[in-house]
Amino acid sequence: MTSPLTADTIADQEVLDLEKLDCVDRVQWVLNTPNPPGLGHELMESAFSWRNKIPFLNKQSGWKVELFSMLQATFPILSWCQNYNATKFKHDLLAGLTLASLCIPQSIGYATLAKLDPQYGLYTSVVPPLIYAVMGTSREIAIGPVSVISLLISSMVLELQDPVANPIAYKRLVLTATFFAGTFQAALGLFRSGFLVDFLSHAAIVGFMAGAAIVIGLQQLKGLLGITHFTNKTDVISVMKAVWSSFHHPWNAHNFVLGFSFLIFIQITRFLGRRNRKLYWLPAIAPLISVILATLIVFLTKADKHGVKTVKHIKGGLNPSSVHQLQFNGPHVGEVAKIGLIVAIIALTEAFAVGRSFAAVKGYHLDGNKEMVAMGFMNIIGSFTSCYVATGSFSRTAVNFSAGCETTVSNIVMAITVFISLELFTKLLYYTPIAILSSIILSALPGLIDLNEAYNIWKVDKLDFLACIGAFLGVLFATVEIGLLVAVTISFAKIILISIRPGTETLGRIPGSDMFGDVNQYPMAVKTPGVLIMRLKTALLCFANANFGKERIMKWVIEEENAEKTIQLVILDISNLIDIDTSGIASLEELHKNLDSNGMKLAIANPRWQVIHKLKLAKFVGKIGGKFYLSVAEAIDSFSL
Amino acid sequence: MTSPLTADTIADQEVLDLEKLDCVDRVQWVLNTPNPPGLGHELMESAFSWRNKIPFLNKQSGWKVELFSMLQATFPILSWCQNYNATKFKHDLLAGLTLASLCIPQSIGYATLAKLDPQYGLYTSVVPPLIYAVMGTSREIAIGPVSVISLLISSMVLELQDPVANPIAYKRLVLTATFFAGTFQAALGLFRSGFLVDFLSHAAIVGFMAGAAIVIGLQQLKGLLGITHFTNKTDVISVMKAVWSSFHHPWNAHNFVLGFSFLIFIQITRFLGRRNRKLYWLPAIAPLISVILATLIVFLTKADKHGVKTVKHIKGGLNPSSVHQLQFNGPHVGEVAKIGLIVAIIALTEAFAVGRSFAAVKGYHLDGNKEMVAMGFMNIIGSFTSCYVATGSFSRTAVNFSAGCETTVSNIVMAITVFISLELFTKLLYYTPIAILSSIILSALPGLIDLNEAYNIWKVDKLDFLACIGAFLGVLFATVEIGLLVAVTISFAKIILISIRPGTETLGRIPGSDMFGDVNQYPMAVKTPGVLIMRLKTALLCFANANFGKERIMKWVIEEENAEKTIQLVILDISNLIDIDTSGIASLEELHKNLDSNGMKLAIANPRWQVIHKLKLAKFVGKIGGKFYLSVAEAIDSFSL
Repeated sequence: MTSPLTADTIADQEVLDLEKLDCVDRVQWVLNTPNPPGLGHELMESAFSWRNKIPFLNKQSGWKVELFSMLQATFPILSWCQNYNATKFKHDLLAGLTLASLCIPQSIGYATLAKLDPQYGLYTSVVPPLIYAVMGTSREIAIGPVSVISLLISSMVLELQDPVANPIAYKRLVLTATFFAGTFQAALGLFRSGFLVDFLSHAAIVGFMAGAAIVIGLQQLKGLLGITHFTNKTDVISVMKAVWSSFHHPWNAHNFVLGFSFLIFIQITRFLGRRNRKLYWLPAIAPLISVILATLIVFLTKADKHGVKTVKHIKGGLNPSSVHQLQFNGPHVGEVAKIGLIVAIIALTEAFAVGRSFAAVKGYHLDGNKEMVAMGFMNIIGSFTSCYVATGSFSRTAVNFSAGCETTVSNIVMAITVFISLELFTKLLYYTPIAILSSIILSALPGLIDLNEAYNIWKVDKLDFLACIGAFLGVLFATVEIGLLVAVTISFAKIILISIRPGTETLGRIPGSDMFGDVNQYPMAVKTPGVLIMRLKTALLCFANANFGKERIMKWVIEEENAEKTIQLVILDISNLIDIDTSGIASLEELHKNLDSNGMKLAIANPRWQVIHKLKLAKFVGKIGGKFYLSVAEAIDSFSL
Repeated sequence: MTSPLTADTIADQEVLDLEKLDCVDRVQWVLNTPNPPGLGHELMESAFSWRNKIPFLNKQSGWKVELFSMLQATFPILSWCQNYNATKFKHDLLAGLTLASLCIPQSIGYATLAKLDPQYGLYTSVVPPLIYAVMGTSREIAIGPVSVISLLISSMVLELQDPVANPIAYKRLVLTATFFAGTFQAALGLFRSGFLVDFLSHAAIVGFMAGAAIVIGLQQLKGLLGITHFTNKTDVISVMKAVWSSFHHPWNAHNFVLGFSFLIFIQITRFLGRRNRKLYWLPAIAPLISVILATLIVFLTKADKHGVKTVKHIKGGLNPSSVHQLQFNGPHVGEVAKIGLIVAIIALTEAFAVGRSFAAVKGYHLDGNKEMVAMGFMNIIGSFTSCYVATGSFSRTAVNFSAGCETTVSNIVMAITVFISLELFTKLLYYTPIAILSSIILSALPGLIDLNEAYNIWKVDKLDFLACIGAFLGVLFATVEIGLLVAVTISFAKIILISIRPGTETLGRIPGSDMFGDVNQYPMAVKTPGVLIMRLKTALLCFANANFGKERIMKWVIEEENAEKTIQLVILDISNLIDIDTSGIASLEELHKNLDSNGMKLAIANPRWQVIHKLKLAKFVGKIGGKFYLSVAEAIDSFSL
């Protein structure tokens, strides 16, 4: 106490003292751990972690600085606009214009898929991208209507309201669902519950997207073949029946010829674009060129008089207000809120998949919670301005990236271009054939089917592949909802299966170390004579596997005994046990009793924090005479002393 | 090669050679593990493990020996009857007679609870105990009708068929449900799927039993108060309403006075029995004494003419055949099979809880699968001979044990005694008041409510307690089925919650060892400068927690960086990761990229067999440059070289 030791040398001294302790003292470290935080504390911590993020609650700096940093956090545009310059704008302008040329025909097509009038697709490409541009953190994502969401929302809302019989009531339900979707998204972000979006596994998304792509493709047969009587159902069998029965009616081949030729044209430009990276703009503007050419052809040949179906009248002008169209009473509110929740999660899943993959390429981090708030607000404000659910589009984000966008300004450019088109050019779309819109949607679908990834999933994890194929078949043969349900169920059943699979493994000493490993994984590991070292292959010794696990261990013990090896000590390595419940503790007690009556001792090695805490609470430590050790090696050492 | 080495010295030599290898070579052991068995192999192994148990399939010894050992395995009575002697029989005879004196009044009461005629309870105490005696492995368990199963089966079957309106159709459904229950039990045992019985956690059983006890107690108010108009529902609110409204009708106090006095008498004998262990027989025969006394009182005072309800006519004689009463067609078969499954599992759960606790006291092992086969056959044959579902009774097994039973012969003695009573004494029960049966049932209920255990569960595990209280309230305020459903749901939700809780912990070196432990659990652990060692608190890095886990790690890295410690290396200890899916691998890749762009290296320590296999398949090992190590210590060593 009197010598002038610095803090560092004291620490060093302590370490040296500790090194001198033998393992008997270290056993006390295992037993005398501080108490772990309780469940309540843990829940509170994760639920209220957002409090730290509200700047007014930590009043260290002046309020002006605080206010600005809060604004910056809410509107990332304030951070990057200070460094924005003419070069960046040139890139964004070019990207935005390319984006608009792809966006306009796609938006019209997706609006038809959502069973809304074409202008609603265009509206959705104006307001949401503008909101996202000031609130979002991704630099590449292209916001607007997408095919899967259009299919999802129409397939669910039309079960409540027929869009043909009462298009106004149908539109009101779609807008209300959009409002709910936005609210759920913003709430998920504000309460930092982004993990809910992860409830769809990667494998399930691959299967779901592929199934949805095929369903969307089949829906396009209506436009491509010019069928009048089509089904409202989305499953393969109903659609094929509808197509088959339409062949019995007289049908017009012009639609098909027109649509199919332009589909081939778009595919050729895509092929060229892929071969030569410099021609990236060719597949991007091919849809617009197709629309212009096809419209001209129909106008010049007057093909609309000969059975070619056209878009006809599109209402021009800026998005009208739709605040008064939202419906919060009536019989369907609960159902519509449910639709909103499902759509919100799928939309976020798609946007995150797109945003994260491009952020990873450019090497920056995407803040999931901020993204959710941005998407939520863009959809809430969208629902006030005649937009349906918007999210990040796979195909257009890729185009935006290839066109060299720098910031979300490309979204602003795109929105302004779409807005100008709405003001000036909607009348020109009168003669645009519907078949061409179907071709444009069809041409974007192959990007949703990722056979390569499905093969990788199969290779790495068979149960994951089951979730993938379950989602795929569910969407294809039942409904979109059932496909999602199948995928989520299989994914969670897998978690339960793996968590409670009560396997055991025997351990041996890995040569040249004090470590013990599975003798199957490390064939060079050496077993210690007279000692059986077991590890449970589970993280949770609980009611569902505790008894089975105990019996497995006893089976091993009896087998080893029968092989005429005299086992004196069974060491249970519970290092991978994260939690234990009362059934688990009871089974450990039974194991101890069973071994004891056979003249063997039980030692426990390397318990985790929560586990040793619960074993102490349940007075198990005293029952087995405190035979707890820091490691398997120390357990062996203490018994050979 | 030329020196005459024995196998042992060669092995020693190899060990020494291996010891000399440095850790760089040991890294190869991590990467070049043999392939783990596939999913299919694992499933096959657990499903077909019973094949090894069929002696004819391993033809090593003569067929006579084989046949006898198979018979012995199926009928354990053949093993122990060779050592059976007069002393043991004396004990068993005494225990069997005590058991019968408790069993006869209980059986009649439980039959009323199951809404069947009284003789069906007695039938169920004859055939099932005889079958169990030759097939079962428990020596103490007392077989027969029990209160919880009687309540469960009646509350579910009466939703299909009103027992008052059509007692014969109701009885046929109960017998069919019994047949299904037996079939499911036998099938579970034959396919060695005993783990299904473990799907009810210990905590859930404690809650369920307590709830069921209260519900059964409330049902007894009908008999005790002599209420004519009672409800068929089992929840507290409906029963209290029925009791309340019955007070508005004129009611007869004789029933209550009679029943309540004998309830007090039984409780006093129980108190005496507990104070003095030698008087164990007093509470056991008290119910029979009560029945005899009460019957005499009614007979002598002619109280049945003054409103005291009596049992009236009981059909005597041996169990009649009921094979032709089983119903395998008709509208309810599916429902009845479902009831059979639920009852089968609850019956097994109760029998196992009873059997295991007494087997542990006497120090022998109960073979779960054999028990299930024995219970299955006793219920199948029971359903052919007018018995409803039988299982091991809590209260009677305790009496059997206290009376000093040695083998299942006590069950045989009991069955024969009940059979003799059925032949000779049923007419004497004409004047037995129903209120006395209610008192006998009520007196057995406190044993089902284990407040002490509920407090222990609360202390050890709050989520377990939630399952307990959920089951309790579900049974009490909804139906028995809903209580079970709530318990199973909470239990499994808990498994999912714990499995995917994406916590992380930082590790430090434990002084005097090469081990690394959680710095919170081991406050004496020392962090290595420049290195951040993290461990995931999950067994399964999957879609539901991978992304969150990755973000947690990055948050730690950034916090450490901000604290102006320069981190050069992040070591991820994945020793407790039992499995990983494609989302998990993707998040590890992203983590690697993020760290790399911040100039840090990622190393992986101690991967498990399945995990390293999948990481190899997904080509992740190459992507991070093979930085895999056997332990955290070796990872640090190899970087400081």
